[in-house]
Amino acid sequence: MIWGNERVLVGDERLDHLLAENLRIIQSPSVFSFSLDAVLLARFSYIPYQKGGRIIDLCSGNGIIPLLVSSRTKVPIIGVEIQERLADMARRSIEYNGLEGQIEILQQDLREVVPILGKGKNSFVICNPPYFALESTSIKNENEHLRIARHEVHCTLRDTIQVSADLLKQGGKASFVHRPERLLEIIDIMREYGLEPKRVQFVHPRVEREANTILVEGIKGAKPGVRYLPPIIVQNADGEYTTQVRELLYGEE
Amino acid sequence: MIWGNERVLVGDERLDHLLAENLRIIQSPSVFSFSLDAVLLARFSYIPYQKGGRIIDLCSGNGIIPLLVSSRTKVPIIGVEIQERLADMARRSIEYNGLEGQIEILQQDLREVVPILGKGKNSFVICNPPYFALESTSIKNENEHLRIARHEVHCTLRDTIQVSADLLKQGGKASFVHRPERLLEIIDIMREYGLEPKRVQFVHPRVEREANTILVEGIKGAKPGVRYLPPIIVQNADGEYTTQVRELLYGEE
Repeated sequence: MIWGNERVLVGDERLDHLLAENLRIIQSPSVFSFSLDAVLLARFSYIPYQKGGRIIDLCSGNGIIPLLVSSRTKVPIIGVEIQERLADMARRSIEYNGLEGQIEILQQDLREVVPILGKGKNSFVICNPPYFALESTSIKNENEHLRIARHEVHCTLRDTIQVSADLLKQGGKASFVHRPERLLEIIDIMREYGLEPKRVQFVHPRVEREANTILVEGIKGAKPGVRYLPPIIVQNADGEYTTQVRELLYGEE
Repeated sequence: MIWGNERVLVGDERLDHLLAENLRIIQSPSVFSFSLDAVLLARFSYIPYQKGGRIIDLCSGNGIIPLLVSSRTKVPIIGVEIQERLADMARRSIEYNGLEGQIEILQQDLREVVPILGKGKNSFVICNPPYFALESTSIKNENEHLRIARHEVHCTLRDTIQVSADLLKQGGKASFVHRPERLLEIIDIMREYGLEPKRVQFVHPRVEREANTILVEGIKGAKPGVRYLPPIIVQNADGEYTTQVRELLYGEE
């Protein structure tokens, strides 16, 4: 596909729609495709409309969260992504949508971003980190791109939380999406770095099933006290997306 | 009301129905009436049908949990209640239902029951403790019976968890119901006493509202790893009990 004088898509990439936001995003089944988890995290995260410094998205992948969030705010957004190939996809999507003025992609190891973005200088951090520990068996069958996005190859859960806490000023907010089996570990590490858990939301694949995803927000230096938000139910009994999720994905009411 | 040669009801007591279990329970608005939380806790708690030593219910009140649980098991149940007036109500309900062979009420301060019931000797503990700290402002307008049942007058959250852990053998299960704002504190104290959190369930008054009640199960000496069960939604949009809750209360499918 050609856009202006540039080739927009590389290899098996597709230009997918983000219907609710009226945006497009470059994806690739062999390199990176965003998941529902990213959409849920973007919606879960508190985002100021106008003021508030800037929003940092760690483990940004193909830039899905900066793109989604951009429709709700005028605040500058910086996506941090270690993989050159993914950072490049993200930048092309940003350009395609004409969002270069608001979103910037920093291709960098997140363990090195604190001096660059400023310790204690930021108001909002969002992170959809790799879910799986390195010893996980599923790692073997994946290519390098997917392996890095899904497994703790370049950053552990502790790294992502520590960096988030370091980036934030007092009162700043960080939000994460992860698997339920790691929630208590996440909460322990958050508190260790002064990021007090304030909001938790559970995502259930169906109303009668256990949660398979969790969303957590912490506020740096806040008083203890967690609110447990209404559950998110993904599919109804017929296996279709619920109204709640359709609204997030397609903008339907 | 007279039953046989005995007066069953005292003062403003009523003989209410437990419809799903086909049992009756003595209640009193000025002394103790059970809440939906007790019903949810009884259903949440893992109960063996036949084998498994005995079930201890701490903070037993008018014996609601022993009565509810008795319909699902043949295992002996001991309810521990500090207030003489409530222990008496519980005993009369047990007798009215002919359950003296299965349920016993021990009128005792729970901080003193470990030597009586045996340290590390029990398989199941259930506890619906007082929810409110002593400094809570709501305490002033209540009579002594309600004050003790609702506030940490005679036992703190730490006491109830410590006693539960002390009573249990390795692999034994304890289940608690409480307010969401104290969940992290409960989990911290549980772990401190070797009671590993294994199942958590959130109760939402309506599907679009935050949780106002939590259910937690711990297993003594278990490996870490929590499952977050399907949410319990109490009322539907019309303000009526959901099918899920009606089934618990009335036995309707």
